[in-house]
Amino acid sequence: MIVILKENLSKKQVGEVLRQLSDLNLEIHNATLNDRNIVAISEFPHDFDIRRIKLLDGVQDVFEVREPYKLASRTWKKEPTTFDVKGITIGGNMINTIAGPCAVESEEQIFSIAKMLHQNGVKFIRGGAYKPRTSPYTFQGMAVEGLKLLRQAADQYNLRVVTEIIDLSVLDEVYEYADILQVGTRNMMNFYMLTELGNIDKPVMLKRGMSSKITEWLMSAEYILSGGNEKVILCERGIRTFDSSVRNTLDVAAFPIIKELSHLPVFSDPSHGTGLRHRVTPMALASIAAGADGLMIEVHNNPEQALSDGPQSLFPDQFVTMLEKIKPIAHVVGRTLDIEIPNTATAAK
Amino acid sequence: MIVILKENLSKKQVGEVLRQLSDLNLEIHNATLNDRNIVAISEFPHDFDIRRIKLLDGVQDVFEVREPYKLASRTWKKEPTTFDVKGITIGGNMINTIAGPCAVESEEQIFSIAKMLHQNGVKFIRGGAYKPRTSPYTFQGMAVEGLKLLRQAADQYNLRVVTEIIDLSVLDEVYEYADILQVGTRNMMNFYMLTELGNIDKPVMLKRGMSSKITEWLMSAEYILSGGNEKVILCERGIRTFDSSVRNTLDVAAFPIIKELSHLPVFSDPSHGTGLRHRVTPMALASIAAGADGLMIEVHNNPEQALSDGPQSLFPDQFVTMLEKIKPIAHVVGRTLDIEIPNTATAAK
Amino acid sequence: MIVILKENLSKKQVGEVLRQLSDLNLEIHNATLNDRNIVAISEFPHDFDIRRIKLLDGVQDVFEVREPYKLASRTWKKEPTTFDVKGITIGGNMINTIAGPCAVESEEQIFSIAKMLHQNGVKFIRGGAYKPRTSPYTFQGMAVEGLKLLRQAADQYNLRVVTEIIDLSVLDEVYEYADILQVGTRNMMNFYMLTELGNIDKPVMLKRGMSSKITEWLMSAEYILSGGNEKVILCERGIRTFDSSVRNTLDVAAFPIIKELSHLPVFSDPSHGTGLRHRVTPMALASIAAGADGLMIEVHNNPEQALSDGPQSLFPDQFVTMLEKIKPIAHVVGRTLDIEIPNTATAAK
Amino acid sequence: MIVILKENLSKKQVGEVLRQLSDLNLEIHNATLNDRNIVAISEFPHDFDIRRIKLLDGVQDVFEVREPYKLASRTWKKEPTTFDVKGITIGGNMINTIAGPCAVESEEQIFSIAKMLHQNGVKFIRGGAYKPRTSPYTFQGMAVEGLKLLRQAADQYNLRVVTEIIDLSVLDEVYEYADILQVGTRNMMNFYMLTELGNIDKPVMLKRGMSSKITEWLMSAEYILSGGNEKVILCERGIRTFDSSVRNTLDVAAFPIIKELSHLPVFSDPSHGTGLRHRVTPMALASIAAGADGLMIEVHNNPEQALSDGPQSLFPDQFVTMLEKIKPIAHVVGRTLDIEIPNTATAAK
Repeated sequence: MIVILKENLSKKQVGEVLRQLSDLNLEIHNATLNDRNIVAISEFPHDFDIRRIKLLDGVQDVFEVREPYKLASRTWKKEPTTFDVKGITIGGNMINTIAGPCAVESEEQIFSIAKMLHQNGVKFIRGGAYKPRTSPYTFQGMAVEGLKLLRQAADQYNLRVVTEIIDLSVLDEVYEYADILQVGTRNMMNFYMLTELGNIDKPVMLKRGMSSKITEWLMSAEYILSGGNEKVILCERGIRTFDSSVRNTLDVAAFPIIKELSHLPVFSDPSHGTGLRHRVTPMALASIAAGADGLMIEVHNNPEQALSDGPQSLFPDQFVTMLEKIKPIAHVVGRTLDIEIPNTATAAK
Repeated sequence: MIVILKENLSKKQVGEVLRQLSDLNLEIHNATLNDRNIVAISEFPHDFDIRRIKLLDGVQDVFEVREPYKLASRTWKKEPTTFDVKGITIGGNMINTIAGPCAVESEEQIFSIAKMLHQNGVKFIRGGAYKPRTSPYTFQGMAVEGLKLLRQAADQYNLRVVTEIIDLSVLDEVYEYADILQVGTRNMMNFYMLTELGNIDKPVMLKRGMSSKITEWLMSAEYILSGGNEKVILCERGIRTFDSSVRNTLDVAAFPIIKELSHLPVFSDPSHGTGLRHRVTPMALASIAAGADGLMIEVHNNPEQALSDGPQSLFPDQFVTMLEKIKPIAHVVGRTLDIEIPNTATAAK
Repeated sequence: MIVILKENLSKKQVGEVLRQLSDLNLEIHNATLNDRNIVAISEFPHDFDIRRIKLLDGVQDVFEVREPYKLASRTWKKEPTTFDVKGITIGGNMINTIAGPCAVESEEQIFSIAKMLHQNGVKFIRGGAYKPRTSPYTFQGMAVEGLKLLRQAADQYNLRVVTEIIDLSVLDEVYEYADILQVGTRNMMNFYMLTELGNIDKPVMLKRGMSSKITEWLMSAEYILSGGNEKVILCERGIRTFDSSVRNTLDVAAFPIIKELSHLPVFSDPSHGTGLRHRVTPMALASIAAGADGLMIEVHNNPEQALSDGPQSLFPDQFVTMLEKIKPIAHVVGRTLDIEIPNTATAAK
Repeated sequence: MIVILKENLSKKQVGEVLRQLSDLNLEIHNATLNDRNIVAISEFPHDFDIRRIKLLDGVQDVFEVREPYKLASRTWKKEPTTFDVKGITIGGNMINTIAGPCAVESEEQIFSIAKMLHQNGVKFIRGGAYKPRTSPYTFQGMAVEGLKLLRQAADQYNLRVVTEIIDLSVLDEVYEYADILQVGTRNMMNFYMLTELGNIDKPVMLKRGMSSKITEWLMSAEYILSGGNEKVILCERGIRTFDSSVRNTLDVAAFPIIKELSHLPVFSDPSHGTGLRHRVTPMALASIAAGADGLMIEVHNNPEQALSDGPQSLFPDQFVTMLEKIKPIAHVVGRTLDIEIPNTATAAK
């Protein structure tokens, strides 16, 4: 159940509502969402009469949400969540494209890619500074130096920065340089980290765990929302199935399901979702056709020399061709792109 | 390895080639495909010099195919397989739509649906006469009576019939009434049935096993192809994953993979693939965007009264709206529909 | 719901009960199980008062079974099902061992193995005559010749024959030579076959589908039971998971679950369940410790020359060592073996 | 490849070996394991002649390990790893039992359980102080107060403490109170945490990720080992499969596989692995029969009032009965328990 308190209540008045809810033997969880005082109630008897809450002083509205996730649920919030990132809208009718390399590798590399993105109208750049790798013997990222280069390149080409927070110990520096903080697939159930991200004022992109059910994904989003940060983007990045001939299976079927269950925007990462560059474009198109709100694409100025994820990174000209196909598909499903693709789209040389 | 023999060899000449191949200690499998004599060789040493075969009298060409499936492989046959079903092309540039109820239930039902399909330009009707159900206590289909009604309705409205052969014991009657014989997900590894279907001259639609790897699916196709029937259509219908909140997960990512590995046409069944009607259209669009060659859609004149699969059957007007969206998406990926959607598409009353 | 009719009702009296049940708007399914007339009722309202049935003339007892499987459920039959196969009890307190090669390959092979089994007290021999293989280019079995050799070897060494019915078209010959008919993993949902096997008077060993949920497995057993054949043995043989480094994962955890849900005996096949011979013994021991009622083990006189499944077949001396370890473990869980292991167990030379 | 350097090399001599290895164009990773200087080499050409390394000054031995995990591999270390925890041996021939509640809830609770464990000869107590829960609205643990109570109870009853480190931010306090630090299933791929745990001198119990392949699990162990901490215990706790009717599926088949691939001890957690108390004992027995080196069991003085995981916690008398059955099974597989079960085992009142 979600209880929305009236606006402009004094602290004492809020306390009074909470006391009365407790008196009803309900387990309550107070939060501020979008500057409004709300109360999430996780368990309540099946025959509970919610009018008992509606009649309390200070209560504006009550929504009966029986899903284990409350604030993430479409039951209480019908309209899609949208928010602004430095002048660009995320969610709603918009389709956003985030692109860039797996990892920041050098100044030359990241500036070259940033320039190419800018020339093609892209508004968001991605790049990893801390790389979680399954082997301790491989490239682990440039750390804070990578963050600085990414920020500089983004600023020069008017891009917004999306980068991963790999551990709470680097929260401060990632917060400083990023516009959107990404939670990786291996951290989707790192509840300590999610709780902290509920307290910040920047958007969080929450990747789906590689074997996480949709309900679990929404419960992880609930951790962030219940801390008061409503700027959450979900990102599907491929699940693990019985078919070992593929690295991951991009769960395109998740997009319409998320749209039914939640008001949160959901993006697609067909690069990790397929693991091979020539499968990226078909799956990007399929994601938009199925209802995704955005794309996260790995593109590299020189994929064959990339220090990580080279095989799944697009060449710049492949990326541009993909963007040109996305546009009419977005149109069919009633959406618009955040970029005006130039008449003569150009792959950086 | 696939060995193509020269045309117009006498039986004796063919025998001579086979003898020479056996003398090379190769395990050979002779077949006729598309009226050509070919030999599939399943195992051969890694350092085998294939020129030893090319030089044999009677051999026209040799393809080194190391995948366990040979005839299904794109390695030896680059161009997509196409074939004709009563004047309509399957495969290649074409996108086909097969539609109809889960099961034939009555004359009124099947004629009403057939009429609606015809009015909207559809060329193929589906309908089950034998229903494999997980419970012995539920509706099991109309059997041969259903087949007859399906055929009559199809003939009246110029439709081609796609229906399932549920067991070899009904092969003769299904063959008599069907234009395309469908192998269901539970029979994908029924090798006895696949072997028999290699001997017929009608197309076979081979649904993917609900937990079958792509390689296993192609091996099942190989059973049909190696018997001499090259008219095989693959059909993705949703796989089983760890996420129990969904009945099946339509594996949209399979379409580009099949296109890489095989020359066979591959269709999508978003009705079984999602299990819920409001998810069918997004997944149909996504399938075409990802490269599928056709759709298999459950549509019913009265879904809420359907004896089976009602919740996943589209209402006629939903079906028509879906068709209208498919067309521009097909165009983006360079494909055309087998139907010319009328300017004023009509849902049957 | 399971309704047990009184004994010695006339055909007319039975018809009268059925009519009255139909009048209550219940979907009824009449069957004979263990020579008793019973009625399975698959759907009934949640608030249905079952006393309305108890009071009908001709009804002896009524069990409220809400699981989708009825006759397979422990809800209505608390005590474990046991039955006799030529003097040996299956189920209950007993632990049975079935052993033999994957496929019958030659007279010499099958007699050699049968002799070794007999010398070690084993009572059941297995061997395939029809081999379903994923590739059409590999060994497909000796067919009826294999069945005859298997029967002869069994008769000479006082063994009972367990062999697979791969397709309904070979039912008559398999029925003639087998004591227990095995349904393979790929046929677990072949409902046509299951229905026919409900009409025979020999036991059926139903292997679990490689991706079948336990409920689905019990529903398949229900097909056989509802036809009137109560001699069903379940057999776990390894499931498919996300871990591609193993062929199958023997689901040892299924044994206690089956024991909770059903009264049917459940065996373990650690040979297919692991795919590698040195993992067979640990998994056989684990299965018995977890509650399995029997073992199905592949053993071969010459595993390295076996035409199929060589790598998972035990050498005779490994098999004997395994049996020696099984005995004390069976004792810990309160069970006894159907074999008295000779003091000096012998591997056949 | 694992290169073992000679003992008592000076720092300069070690540097010289590393320089020479680098000159061979090898990617090297220096570590100290068990007080010996070693070098792990992750990639090397397939035709590399390892004698070139053997002949270097300062090199004692070289092992060619081609698995992606090196130090965790049985290829270079044949004998099982054993180590001592306050007088009790882990690994080798020994079977250890760790038991206790899911979470520390109160002084009374944890002392009551500790006493019961002591009375039954158990040497290790478990208990969570920080609980990662999928819902932000449920009990999150007693934190450091819980750790203190756990330590006090353990000290009073001569038990060793096993508890989870849920986030790096609590490493110092967990290190202070624990004898073995447990990494939970959701942190198995938290490479930041694993790297830090490679630098401590206390054993780490690494639970398997709920969808992690065995190779991935060993790669995570490699992170700890390559930091210089060789005291790693693996713990299987149930994997996620397609069967949603069970919470987890304890992968008993993993035990023999781990034994083949690695020298590390591997424990079983049948409590999380089954999720229901009446399935715990059969799966504990099965685990030991399959080759597990230890058990991790949830037991509670009052399971029905437990704040978390009540349904999977054993009652004390069930726990004692389980221990009595473990002993003879351990004997069959040639193992001994770390506890001498008293003649009259007692469940605490």
